[in-house]
Amino acid sequence: MTNDILPRSVQRLIDEFSRLPGIGPKTASRLTFFLLRAANEQSAELSEAVRLLKSSTRLCSNCFNITEIDPCPTCSDDARDDTLLCVVEEPLDVVAIERSRVYLGRYHVLHGVISPVEGVGPDDLKIAELIQRIENGDFIEVILATNATLEGDSTALYLQRRLMPYEVKMTRLARGLPVGGDLEYTDEVTLGRAMEGRQELI
Amino acid sequence: MTNDILPRSVQRLIDEFSRLPGIGPKTASRLTFFLLRAANEQSAELSEAVRLLKSSTRLCSNCFNITEIDPCPTCSDDARDDTLLCVVEEPLDVVAIERSRVYLGRYHVLHGVISPVEGVGPDDLKIAELIQRIENGDFIEVILATNATLEGDSTALYLQRRLMPYEVKMTRLARGLPVGGDLEYTDEVTLGRAMEGRQELI
Repeated sequence: MTNDILPRSVQRLIDEFSRLPGIGPKTASRLTFFLLRAANEQSAELSEAVRLLKSSTRLCSNCFNITEIDPCPTCSDDARDDTLLCVVEEPLDVVAIERSRVYLGRYHVLHGVISPVEGVGPDDLKIAELIQRIENGDFIEVILATNATLEGDSTALYLQRRLMPYEVKMTRLARGLPVGGDLEYTDEVTLGRAMEGRQELI
Repeated sequence: MTNDILPRSVQRLIDEFSRLPGIGPKTASRLTFFLLRAANEQSAELSEAVRLLKSSTRLCSNCFNITEIDPCPTCSDDARDDTLLCVVEEPLDVVAIERSRVYLGRYHVLHGVISPVEGVGPDDLKIAELIQRIENGDFIEVILATNATLEGDSTALYLQRRLMPYEVKMTRLARGLPVGGDLEYTDEVTLGRAMEGRQELI
């Protein structure tokens, strides 16, 4: 949209919304005009929530998850298992695992994956900090829970080599059919992994 | 997402984004975590743009389009034709028509359509103000450019009846094949209207 048709402050918000991932100019103007029609309160609250997001959050100095208090609630929770460490790519992965309610150990957030294409090397991730935690901690098992993607797999492989000197068991999340998934609609790679990882019925 | 997994300020922004149309909880958390990783500057600018949106815009007291100055630039533009009035549902419709660059008359924004289902009657729209403008103005033609929907059509019909006493020509936008459109993929109603409205080649 050209700048002279719309008022400057309207165009400005459309431009800001368009900078967000997955939001094109059409969606951005739909959102902006929605806010124009909505109660003043709603845009005030959105503005405030965006403003406070950064100022009231930081990274936990121990696990590097996003938190309002340092160390984060998960790290300072005494009820959690100190011998289990789950290494993930992003803070949202912690949320996903927590929602599954089957894991009660500690976390470590790498903040990315090794990706030569995007110029991300091991030093750009929280890997040195991970090694330090394993050196100083009582971990028995480290779950390398990076994504089931090419980059996630290579990062896990890299971590496996780096952590070899420490006496910890290293594991990856199982690959297989998603629960509720149809065999017919499962891609052949996943199906192959499900076949290889088949489990005996007892 | 449950509140105890995520920091409060993160959850708060996810909730605010989720209140926007077409943004579900998944998209809302993707946007929030994107902002967490982006430069501080970007969230500061977004917050400010949202905050200023309402405070620096108002409705033009003449045409009811959204504007920063009253009367709006379109109403105060002397080069525009004072005998032509285009009535639209929303401010975004003005943007769409302006982009087509074929119309150089005045506008009137109704801010909605008559919709008994949603409890919107004629008094909820800027219809009294439209009639006043037509009474006081020099309009020769009024283009009822509401959407080509059931509600848009009935609102146009209602306006046509209300404006009958005034000596103005009333028109609707043409229906037909979209430019670049395939006959094969055009729905039968549009094709029927295109057939009825066929034009002689000269």
